[in-house]
Parts: sequence; structure tokens; C-alpha cells
Amino acid sequence: MKAILVVMDGLGDRPIKEFGNKTPLEAATRPNMNKLAERGITGIMETIGPGITPGSDVAHLAIFGLDPKEHYHGRGPIEACGAGIKLRHGDIALRGNAGTVDEKMIVKDRRAGRIDSTAELCKEIDGMKIDGIEIILKPGAWYRAALVLRGEGLSDKVTGNDGKDVNIPILQVKPTDNSREAKKTADILNKLTKITYEKWKSHPYNQKRAKEGKLPGNVLLFRAAGQYVPVPTLEERYHIKSACISGGGLYNGIGTFLGMDIIHVPGATGSYTSDFNAKTKKAMEIIKDYDFVFVHMKPTDSAGEDGNPKLKKEMIEKMDTAIGGLLKFDGLVILTADHTTPCEKKDHSYEPVPVVISGPGVRTDDVKEYGERSCVGGGLCKIKGLDLMPIITNHMGFSKKYGA
Amino acid sequence: MKAILVVMDGLGDRPIKEFGNKTPLEAATRPNMNKLAERGITGIMETIGPGITPGSDVAHLAIFGLDPKEHYHGRGPIEACGAGIKLRHGDIALRGNAGTVDEKMIVKDRRAGRIDSTAELCKEIDGMKIDGIEIILKPGAWYRAALVLRGEGLSDKVTGNDGKDVNIPILQVKPTDNSREAKKTADILNKLTKITYEKWKSHPYNQKRAKEGKLPGNVLLFRAAGQYVPVPTLEERYHIKSACISGGGLYNGIGTFLGMDIIHVPGATGSYTSDFNAKTKKAMEIIKDYDFVFVHMKPTDSAGEDGNPKLKKEMIEKMDTAIGGLLKFDGLVILTADHTTPCEKKDHSYEPVPVVISGPGVRTDDVKEYGERSCVGGGLCKIKGLDLMPIITNHMGFSKKYGA
Repeated sequence: MKAILVVMDGLGDRPIKEFGNKTPLEAATRPNMNKLAERGITGIMETIGPGITPGSDVAHLAIFGLDPKEHYHGRGPIEACGAGIKLRHGDIALRGNAGTVDEKMIVKDRRAGRIDSTAELCKEIDGMKIDGIEIILKPGAWYRAALVLRGEGLSDKVTGNDGKDVNIPILQVKPTDNSREAKKTADILNKLTKITYEKWKSHPYNQKRAKEGKLPGNVLLFRAAGQYVPVPTLEERYHIKSACISGGGLYNGIGTFLGMDIIHVPGATGSYTSDFNAKTKKAMEIIKDYDFVFVHMKPTDSAGEDGNPKLKKEMIEKMDTAIGGLLKFDGLVILTADHTTPCEKKDHSYEPVPVVISGPGVRTDDVKEYGERSCVGGGLCKIKGLDLMPIITNHMGFSKKYGA
Repeated sequence: MKAILVVMDGLGDRPIKEFGNKTPLEAATRPNMNKLAERGITGIMETIGPGITPGSDVAHLAIFGLDPKEHYHGRGPIEACGAGIKLRHGDIALRGNAGTVDEKMIVKDRRAGRIDSTAELCKEIDGMKIDGIEIILKPGAWYRAALVLRGEGLSDKVTGNDGKDVNIPILQVKPTDNSREAKKTADILNKLTKITYEKWKSHPYNQKRAKEGKLPGNVLLFRAAGQYVPVPTLEERYHIKSACISGGGLYNGIGTFLGMDIIHVPGATGSYTSDFNAKTKKAMEIIKDYDFVFVHMKPTDSAGEDGNPKLKKEMIEKMDTAIGGLLKFDGLVILTADHTTPCEKKDHSYEPVPVVISGPGVRTDDVKEYGERSCVGGGLCKIKGLDLMPIITNHMGFSKKYGA
């Protein structure tokens, strides 16, 4: 049996006064999600554990059956995978932004006025060497870039240069342990800060921006250093061939990190105007070539972080329409989320998320609505993120009996 | 307080179309099971864990409070216990069948035409020595036999000679690691294959079968080698005196393995015609001499493996009648299963099983039906197999306070 897993990012929420104390999900018109709840078995899922607020990266690792305690080495390597960098064991990867500093290296804007591309700037740096270490710098969406240091004697035990605030000086990178490797890595990164400023401050791309009255992307800000340690792929662990459909960035990174094929869908941007229908349509097309397709939808999280319950509800309703395209699928359809992003908190939170597994042979329960509270009564009871793939892949027929 | 635990093997199932999407248990008329659910506290139990399909052996170890990760060394030793062999630490035990091979040692029937007894054949082998190692071979039910190798320098890191298929040659036993012990054990087992053929091919028992037009049991097929490592008994762990009532084979083996007294009940065969009433009647008789009686009923699993939901429902209804004999018991009555065996899958599966604990002082809940879906709402919530004995023995009064 085949399976399509839809993760709606940050879907979970808290009661919203203006919705009569319903959550955005509960308040949304969602006939297709409810149809799957009625057909399938529901439950509530703590992606990591009770009272733990997960980042999207660790939440997805757990959902895909990898214990983050063992396999998570920072967001850097996952973002670098998402930027299309073919990582090698031992590479040090960091998340980067093109930012704006003044001549005293005081940060004036962490995103260089939300600069629309770092491609031209990255080219100036990508492939250079500092102290014999190769510097790989690839553009991400908008102001983002993925930075990788490749060579002998490196460590991820270093801070970044990004103080995550403005009107403060760019930070000196420091080793966080006493190793020679960490000191060396910090030195290289400090040199890199200066080199990006020297090469970017008068770059034609920035000169053009200056003429348009826009802030220059004149320095590389970076953070979240992590060493890349390969993990067993979904195919190695579950013997399934899998594909990832997402708006890009981190989520394609997770797909790549886990050995999925990345399928690009026109119009699937990860933004509020992303074409969810195109994603589920593509999932239905490609499932003939795969055992398992992961579809990621982002803007529920963005609306939560923007503190906008109406927009979150609207996004859920659009996602519901897209999920309608999966109702005729003859395998498993699984809906869930990676974490809760309450509009009132404007950030991730700890509360568990609803999950439904629907398809042939699934035991079912009495729950007829897909929601944070309704799914508590479901037949899956409360599960952890790490439980999900063993259940799905067992039902798909990819598990062996334990014992005899 | 005393307790009677009834395990209905492979009881759990999936929705069955012809039963209006009820499971065989839900579709069955089961007033006595429902009475216990009404009187007691219910829940749903994953004998091993989420998405894990348990074999009956590991499931029972967990239900009786032993973590299989630590205590499971293959099915061989448990089956040997069931055949009445008093195992010693270090013995290597294997599951055996009398099978039929042709003169080129091609397997023609893995069960020798379901030969009705291996007693006469086993006698020819039992007690002999090969390379100084004692060979113990005792009959099981029908075509089955339990094989034990006893002596110094043995290992369970060996394959079997049983390819689990017909029209293929009998397999050479091979060591699965590089140890001297594994090589020696494999050599002995390969010699044993030949010896059984030499001694059995013209055995009077087979000559008699030949006259009746039946296949000869002319070779010993064996598999699932495991080393016997004693486990702490129920008495050692919980200070309870316990007895086992089952149809035999593996389940008496589990009882013996765990230090229970094995109580034989005429008519309790483990087959579709097994006398369940005789089992519960015997349990009510002997409970005066024990703290805890384990009653095992097999055919729910067999009917699932045969893909026969009507037969499974019929077996459940017969079991329900037998369980009626426990309603007057003044201690704890616990009903559960070791795993799910969906009729549509004809094999074990991962879904959890319903559990009820009924008796004086038990907290109770609102669940009034014993079923896969109804028990999800019960007061025990979802438990693991390993949780069951601590709850039961605590309620019986055999636990000490933790802390002060």
C-alpha cells in the first residue's frame, strides 16, 4: 500500500476569542479534513514530548522516525541540503542572511531590506578558500544563503556573527569549546565576515540597489553552525521510495536530508499565495512512481507567527480544498502538523497536534472532525512523532514481525 | 486478592465489510465480556509498541512483565519448555517438524502429511550424542518436535535446515558469526539432519504410514535456534504463585519459561474444537491453590490466519460463554489479547488490543463493551504490554510503595 502524508506547518493553535473560543482549525470550514477523520483513525501527537516546543527541523525528523537526540546537529546542515548543496560527512553548515552594516560594522538591517536575491553576491564567495578550507555559499529564498565550510580540522562548536538584532555591532565568532578545531573554524568565519564586506560593499548588485534607494546586502550574517552527519534514509530504514513536495528551503532540505526525491511544483512557494492544489495534484500524479509522498504546506505557521487567526483560518480552508484532491486516493492519507503555532503567541508552542490516518484496513474510530480537541478522543490515542512512521509503514506492509 | 488472566490469541482485528465494518469481536454476541467491561476498567494495549507487529512469544513475555529486548532469545527455547524439556542455562533449542524428503533430499512436505505424532521417531534420536553433545528430541503436537543440543562450546548463531518451502533441497546449516562455537553447532546439526534421515526413512512407523498411503516423516526439519537463558519467574518478580492453562505447545512453554505450574485440562487442545468451558472451569477450581491463573485460548488467532471472520466471531462467542464461568469469581478477571490478527491480512498485525481489568476495588469507567474501538475510551487509556503485570499485581496487593 502507498501513502501520502500532508504536514500543515504550525497548524495547531489555542482557543481564539473572536472564533467563540474555537481554534482557527476548528473554526475553519474543512469538509475534506473532516471526511478523512470520519473515514480514518485519529489521535493527538506530541512531535517531541510533553511540554516541549519543537522547532520545525526536529519536529520533522521525529515525524520521519529519526530521534533528534541522536540525529539533530543544528539547522545549518538541513538548510544547506535545501539549498541544493551535496554535503559530505564532516562539513560545517550555517544558516546565512545577506545583511546591511554601516562602515563601523554596526548591523542596520538583518535582511538587507529583504533583498530579493543573494545569487549574485554568493557567486563572489562560493568556491574560495580560506586557510585551505573551501567556502561554499549558495543562495536561498530572498535574503537567505547557505554557508558550508569543507576541509580537515573543523568543528561546529562555534557561535555565529549574527546577534539577531539591529544597531549592534556584528559579532566576533567564538569557539564554544577549547578544541583547536573550534578555534580554527572561528578564525576562518571571522575572516569570512570581513571578506564578504570587502567584496560586497561596492558590488554592482548593491550599486544598483543604492540607485533604487534600497539597502545594500553588504555583509554575510550567519548562525546555527552544525556538522553534517549522514542519517539513514527512509529507504534504508523502511524500504520505501519517497518524494517530497514543498515550498522549498528547510522542507526540501529535510526531504534531501532523509533521502527523498525533491519534486518541484510551479506555484508552490511556501508563501500565503502558494498553490496548495498544485501540490496535492502533483502528489496524486507522482504516487504511481513512489511508495510515499510527503506534502508540506507552510502558511498556517506563518499566519500563526504573524498573529493573524483570520488569515490562518483562511489558509486552512484553502488547504482543505487541496486535500479534497486526495479523497479518491486508494492508499493511506495522513494529515498532521509539526507543531502548534498559537496566533496569540506568534511563535511555536508545546501543545500536541491532531493526526488522522485514513485508508484501506484502518481500524477507524468515532471521531468525525479533524481538530485539536476532537482528535483527542480518537483511536490512536496520544502518540509521539517517533511513533508515526512505524505505524504508517507497518500498515503499508513494510514491517517485519518482531518475534515469532 | 487473586487474579485470572484470559489471553485470547490474535483477538484484535480490522473492520470487516460483511459485519457492517465491525470487527469480529464487535460483531460477536458477547454478554459476558461486556459485563466485565461494564464492571471493570478498560483500555487499549500495545503489547510491544506503536507500529510493531508482535510474535506470540515476545507478546506474552511483555504481557508477563519481561522486556523481550532483554529476555527474548528466539522461539526455540520457549517451544522446548512447552515440550516438557527441563532446559539448562546454555542449552541450544530449535523448533522442529517431521518432514518428508525424497532420496535426493528435496523437501516434498514440511509436515510429512501432517503426521499425527512424532513420538516414535523422536525416541530413535533422543539421548544420542554427536561429537560429545547430547541431542534431546521430544515430540510436540502433531508433526512438531522440540530439539535441544546440550554440552560445552555451543552457540545459537546458526541457521536452520528448514527453507520453509517445498521442492527445494534441505538446507545446509551455516554459522551466522565467525565463532568456533557456531561452526561446531552447525556441524553437529548437519550431521543430525543425515542421522534422522538414515534412522527414520525405513522406521516401522513410516512403513506403517506407507501402507496407509501416507507420507513418511523421514527427516527432521529445524529452525529458530535460541540459547536458553533463565528468566526470573513470576514468583521471583511478583511473589505470586501462578498456573497456566493452555492448549499446549508454545503457551505451556511460556508458562514453564516463566515458572508457572502447567495444568492439563482434558479437551483443551488449542484447536477450533478446544473446550474453552473446561479451561475456565478448571481455572475456577485451581485458583484456590494459586494467586494467579493464566488461561490461554488459541483459535481466534487461527481463524484470523485462516482469513475466516465468521469462524473468528464464532470462536469469540464460544469463548464468551466460557468467560461467563468467571463472572462469579471474587478476585480480578483480566481479558486481553497478545496481538491483532486481521482476517484480511491472515497474519499478525500492529494494531493494539482491548484490555479489561474487573474486580473488587477497580476504579471503573463508562465503557460498557469489550471491543477494539470501545475500549479506547477506557480508564486505563493506552498501555503497553509491560504495564499490565505491574497494574494487576499491585491491585492484588503484591507491590511495595516506591518512596515513603
